[in-house]
Amino acid sequence: MPQPIEYADASAQVRAVYDDIKKTRNVPDVNNFWKYLAHDPVTLKRTWESVKEVMMPGALDALTKEMIYLAVSVTNGCGYCIASHTAAARKAGMNEAMFAEVMAVTGMANETNRLANGYRVPVDDAFLK
Amino acid sequence: MPQPIEYADASAQVRAVYDDIKKTRNVPDVNNFWKYLAHDPVTLKRTWESVKEVMMPGALDALTKEMIYLAVSVTNGCGYCIASHTAAARKAGMNEAMFAEVMAVTGMANETNRLANGYRVPVDDAFLK
Amino acid sequence: MPQPIEYADASAQVRAVYDDIKKTRNVPDVNNFWKYLAHDPVTLKRTWESVKEVMMPGALDALTKEMIYLAVSVTNGCGYCIASHTAAARKAGMNEAMFAEVMAVTGMANETNRLANGYRVPVDDAFLK
Amino acid sequence: MPQPIEYADASAQVRAVYDDIKKTRNVPDVNNFWKYLAHDPVTLKRTWESVKEVMMPGALDALTKEMIYLAVSVTNGCGYCIASHTAAARKAGMNEAMFAEVMAVTGMANETNRLANGYRVPVDDAFLK
Amino acid sequence: MPQPIEYADASAQVRAVYDDIKKTRNVPDVNNFWKYLAHDPVTLKRTWESVKEVMMPGALDALTKEMIYLAVSVTNGCGYCIASHTAAARKAGMNEAMFAEVMAVTGMANETNRLANGYRVPVDDAFLK
Amino acid sequence: MPQPIEYADASAQVRAVYDDIKKTRNVPDVNNFWKYLAHDPVTLKRTWESVKEVMMPGALDALTKEMIYLAVSVTNGCGYCIASHTAAARKAGMNEAMFAEVMAVTGMANETNRLANGYRVPVDDAFLK
Repeated sequence: MPQPIEYADASAQVRAVYDDIKKTRNVPDVNNFWKYLAHDPVTLKRTWESVKEVMMPGALDALTKEMIYLAVSVTNGCGYCIASHTAAARKAGMNEAMFAEVMAVTGMANETNRLANGYRVPVDDAFLK
Repeated sequence: MPQPIEYADASAQVRAVYDDIKKTRNVPDVNNFWKYLAHDPVTLKRTWESVKEVMMPGALDALTKEMIYLAVSVTNGCGYCIASHTAAARKAGMNEAMFAEVMAVTGMANETNRLANGYRVPVDDAFLK
Repeated sequence: MPQPIEYADASAQVRAVYDDIKKTRNVPDVNNFWKYLAHDPVTLKRTWESVKEVMMPGALDALTKEMIYLAVSVTNGCGYCIASHTAAARKAGMNEAMFAEVMAVTGMANETNRLANGYRVPVDDAFLK
Repeated sequence: MPQPIEYADASAQVRAVYDDIKKTRNVPDVNNFWKYLAHDPVTLKRTWESVKEVMMPGALDALTKEMIYLAVSVTNGCGYCIASHTAAARKAGMNEAMFAEVMAVTGMANETNRLANGYRVPVDDAFLK
Repeated sequence: MPQPIEYADASAQVRAVYDDIKKTRNVPDVNNFWKYLAHDPVTLKRTWESVKEVMMPGALDALTKEMIYLAVSVTNGCGYCIASHTAAARKAGMNEAMFAEVMAVTGMANETNRLANGYRVPVDDAFLK
Repeated sequence: MPQPIEYADASAQVRAVYDDIKKTRNVPDVNNFWKYLAHDPVTLKRTWESVKEVMMPGALDALTKEMIYLAVSVTNGCGYCIASHTAAARKAGMNEAMFAEVMAVTGMANETNRLANGYRVPVDDAFLK
């Protein structure tokens, strides 16, 4: 089994990424996700820089982005990601009522996606414009 | 192949649902999704009432909910749902920049979900509290 | 793009499988699925023999098996499989009301699967016995 | 982490749902799924009423519905749902031989869904009628 | 909960499969996967013979096949399969750098699959030839 | 519906990415995937640079990487991606026999993933080391 790579044991290359994560997120340590990805410093760096760019507030705020991330993780059934992005969304301001609505929408979308599949519903002309 | 059930050919039970959809959404006709579900009036009614309840603005606004719906549909690869919820999200106010960010977050979440799976990352203690 | 391999153009090895499909199912020709798989005679033969063994009436009858097959195909969003197994289930006796219930159960399961994921529900002790 | 809401600690609204589940299913307590959903009484009520309607014997009996639910849960890899619906299906009459056949069909469908995807098999004309 | 069936407790039919697995793979015992499938000797035998045929070196070597198996298992989020096929791929020669690249490709494919879905990209004419 | 952005209509920022794709891959034009992503130049650039880094021959050669990409795309049922990565893998050297084996392994992995889920097989101690 792979083991997490702690800061003390990390290469300069990995430490540079950890430092940027800690600074960007204002946290004292990085999550396990990064400590495992650190086995591949190239993927660690690319993934962090991609996540940083994608999750930066833009046309959508950080909270909305985290709730979308959570909805996808719940759909895929990724246990680690559900746990970490629930925490991240809460930190960004998701309260209990918001969490409940993210779950309700995610559940409903997964249901109607299958109803549309099963009834083989053709796309409305209006949606093709 | 099932065929859509148009208002003119619908039973009173189905028409009542169509009328409520048209009134709630202020649209002249219902989408194909409902015209196919109409083959099962019980599921039509339950699904519409559930969608109406879930998608009503609450702790989250209509736009945020539609973008989450879209992210789930994209993750599942449901062609009909991607088309219809892209349209619904645009109607609720999603502009080009927002659409692009929903896609970017959805793509990134699908990627990191698999990295977390593959590296078998254990959940951080902090996420279990 | 691969093209279907018709009986007239098939090798003796492929024809033997086609013949067995036609005889077992009492049909005049095989579906496109087999005509494409025929590009790999080894997979064609293994898949057909596996499908034949699995779908043979046993503890479950043919109709129940076809409805399960359809529910899985709808969940995965496989367009070809939804079309072919809807047809197969109808041939095995699935009427409109049964189809509607297969869809309703499939949709609901996809919804509650995500609610269970998102709320991180631990397995009840009773289910571990 | 969310915690289960036990009957003693539940609101009147939540207790009403728990009471209906216990009465409908003739069980002394509700499963963890409902105790977690209880954090959102609106979703709890809607989900229970939907599940009750969908799973009621109709054109399909309770056992067939539970086996379809299980097949979907196995396809999605939802650990909680696999455990709970295996138990529910057994209670509805699924024996060892039936369980084995549900698994065999589910596995085979997941395999052939991908073969159809990968070989890009076009839908047969006969399935479009 | 089902329990694993050990060699000492297995029927002659199951032992014959276990013996063939041990001989083919040159291992002293079979993995849990087979010990659970043994509850259905027919599926045990069919699955083993299929896996043996599919995973045999052919146009692709054993290592390449195991890495593909791992990529699929990671995509589906099957915990058992990720663990067992990581071990199998390592045994077939996958080193740390190769594992990292399998993960990177799997993650990227999952991301771009959703970008293609969400942007509703039509297939290029060149890919239809 | 979004439309593809052709080189002649592209901004300097987008053209720079198109130029790099054409040079890196030695092709006269870019695929539709990039022409649609071009609606979001930031995602276009990040995705291309990530794909370029990930797909560069390293511990694994280009062909192996493309076959893994294809296996994931087939598992997810992404029609565009199956078409484009089948073409890419062929260009990298995948012949008919190799394609057939990628499909066979992908199909089998999807099947056994579900058997492992459904039988709730615990991870072998040996895989936890």
